Amino acid sequence: MAQAVRHDAMRARNLALVLGEVNARGSLTRAALAEITGLTKTTVSKLVADLIEAGLVVETGAVRDGERGRPGVVVRVSGEHVASVGLEINVDYLAVRVVDLSRTVRLRRTQAVDNRFAQPGDVVALLRDLALKAVDDAVDMGLRVVGGVLAVPGPVDQRTGTVHNAPNLGWRDVPVAALLELPFPVQVENEANLAALGELWFGSGLSDFLHVSGEIGIGAGLVVRGRLFQGSHGFAGELGHVVVSPDGPACRCGGKGCLEQYASQDALAAATGLPPGAGPHGNGAQRTGAQAGGASGNGTQATPGGTTAGDISWIVSRLEAGDAAALAACERAGWALGVALSSAINLVDPDTIVLGGIYGPLFPWIGEAVAATLTSRLGQMRDAVPPVVVSRLGTEAAALGAAGQVIQRVIADPAALLQT
Amino acid sequence: MAQAVRHDAMRARNLALVLGEVNARGSLTRAALAEITGLTKTTVSKLVADLIEAGLVVETGAVRDGERGRPGVVVRVSGEHVASVGLEINVDYLAVRVVDLSRTVRLRRTQAVDNRFAQPGDVVALLRDLALKAVDDAVDMGLRVVGGVLAVPGPVDQRTGTVHNAPNLGWRDVPVAALLELPFPVQVENEANLAALGELWFGSGLSDFLHVSGEIGIGAGLVVRGRLFQGSHGFAGELGHVVVSPDGPACRCGGKGCLEQYASQDALAAATGLPPGAGPHGNGAQRTGAQAGGASGNGTQATPGGTTAGDISWIVSRLEAGDAAALAACERAGWALGVALSSAINLVDPDTIVLGGIYGPLFPWIGEAVAATLTSRLGQMRDAVPPVVVSRLGTEAAALGAAGQVIQRVIADPAALLQT
Repeated sequence: MAQAVRHDAMRARNLALVLGEVNARGSLTRAALAEITGLTKTTVSKLVADLIEAGLVVETGAVRDGERGRPGVVVRVSGEHVASVGLEINVDYLAVRVVDLSRTVRLRRTQAVDNRFAQPGDVVALLRDLALKAVDDAVDMGLRVVGGVLAVPGPVDQRTGTVHNAPNLGWRDVPVAALLELPFPVQVENEANLAALGELWFGSGLSDFLHVSGEIGIGAGLVVRGRLFQGSHGFAGELGHVVVSPDGPACRCGGKGCLEQYASQDALAAATGLPPGAGPHGNGAQRTGAQAGGASGNGTQATPGGTTAGDISWIVSRLEAGDAAALAACERAGWALGVALSSAINLVDPDTIVLGGIYGPLFPWIGEAVAATLTSRLGQMRDAVPPVVVSRLGTEAAALGAAGQVIQRVIADPAALLQT
Repeated sequence: MAQAVRHDAMRARNLALVLGEVNARGSLTRAALAEITGLTKTTVSKLVADLIEAGLVVETGAVRDGERGRPGVVVRVSGEHVASVGLEINVDYLAVRVVDLSRTVRLRRTQAVDNRFAQPGDVVALLRDLALKAVDDAVDMGLRVVGGVLAVPGPVDQRTGTVHNAPNLGWRDVPVAALLELPFPVQVENEANLAALGELWFGSGLSDFLHVSGEIGIGAGLVVRGRLFQGSHGFAGELGHVVVSPDGPACRCGGKGCLEQYASQDALAAATGLPPGAGPHGNGAQRTGAQAGGASGNGTQATPGGTTAGDISWIVSRLEAGDAAALAACERAGWALGVALSSAINLVDPDTIVLGGIYGPLFPWIGEAVAATLTSRLGQMRDAVPPVVVSRLGTEAAALGAAGQVIQRVIADPAALLQT
């Protein structure tokens, strides 16, 4: 019995070793895998056969010259069988993404809603419908969804899947994982952390950056040498509540003068002249649609399946029309973002700042103020102020990071999947 | 040849494995070491003999029952032979600490000086004299100093040992390691990071905390699960330049309203009524002395070998006398520290805040304002605001962390020492 347990543990470790190398290197022959892992060719062949049977790995058909002239068949991670679902509950939209094991995005669904005045149960039920439809469509593509991660805008107790506190949703201690009741395991994680991982896995290829998620709330995720920094309890990255001005406007968090009071979507809409909640989606109109592919949310127009729209496209249209209030709101938001980021840079020393979410479409109007504020506050201390760039993922980053998190876990422990 | 290289590498790894276990567990028999490491008893005996010969490990004389009734002699890390030097250049003092391999502090030297208007070369020459005298005294105790680390108040290029920028010293690009010319290798590191490591290794036993170094400047070091977080370039933890009020007083860093403008030693002295640099040490009077032991710098009186003194003991005496300006300065400093810490807590999520340096003696007058500010700004978002405690190490933390860093490196790679 103990012998069997030990054998299982060793097999699990070796499956992870082989799949990890295939994933990291793109494609490999069995002979190359044996050489890299130090396992015998017989062991590698058995492990690869198990991974092929489980649909995690596939032979490409390509043949590569091996040692001593014997050609070998190349294997790679299979995108044809196993998939994950990335889910997101945000203040003004719900999102679902299906990603296959080769990290190709297979399905995108976004629904604009206003979750601020909705009951958590109703929001979760709507998301559940969206997710189940996406899973059905994935099945039609021949994919098996093995797990999901849900992104929420606030700190989460990851063990219980409970949203601790999401002030912009008005949620407190909501057991969202339990409410969701999907036919596969779902982890719940902070939206800003997942958006940073989305940028890491699906973005511009950087491995050292602070990713800022501009939404109704503002969060951040710090990636250092390819790893997410989460702090002592997983609550790091609450950039939206960094102090810009200690006696500034009261914030939902209980503080005053937090960054969200200057640079969130609501703050920008209010300063532009739109009362919060009165945007194009404030009347409860809901839009949904599937997109064939391509990142969305970083354009300035609401698309048929757009992921942001609502207030932000309205703000952008005012900016494009040269509206003075909108321009002043962006100038102020850029300055505030620069102040908060200068505190963040002093504290956590990121290599690059990646602006995501609403800061993508707003960048032409806030970028200069952010950069000028950073230079004036940091330029004398440092040879170089960290560059500020725009994420190409827009508001899609969190849901993609969520889906990618599941893929990461399958790659790290394929044996768990083989047993089911 | 390749065989020999491989054998050396394996021996180095095994020496580190054995010394690491002895260090972590306090004391062990050779039989227990063989069981824990998986090495044969013969191999362990040979490795232990080498470590004893190098003076890194010693037999305690104690005998412990082994397996099958055969008693074994217990070994532990030796504090009798190998030692390290921790050095610190700060704005108003120089410090030297000698620590042996068992992490016992063997020698403490602190000299009050005013380095703000001194040439870097003169400061380094004075520190060199102090260090060489300490090394001589260590030799008299039978100790061999194998390396040193120097703490400086500002960001450092660790590869070249160059102080990048220390605005409170007025230093820019000073190649301090090269200038120091000590007869053993010296690494240069940021004072605030080393103070956090000092707290980790010589302090209260916490392994998750943000340590705040209050001095002429203010720095911080974040320890998460026993490891120092340094950011992407090693410049993390510049708490002194976190924004308290964006249009506040101009700061030496080029910014405005940084924490240092409210809560540094100079800011407190100025608000109490003492112009910067006019404190008891401002006339160039220098004090030095060796202490037998015990942490210093956390009392409210200047001791014969005191490490802080200067302005801070004067401020404390004004506080004890009930001086209104001093009390108001502390109230304001505590509030500002609370504002900056609330930004830090939102960004990096520390488990506990440890206040070090001048905040030790000042705690009775600033503690309440810090805690009240944190509660009012964070209490609504979190179940619990991180507790704020006082370091018992005072201004000694950085020099101890520096010495401890060398010990850490010897434990991690004893073979490097055996070859010399």
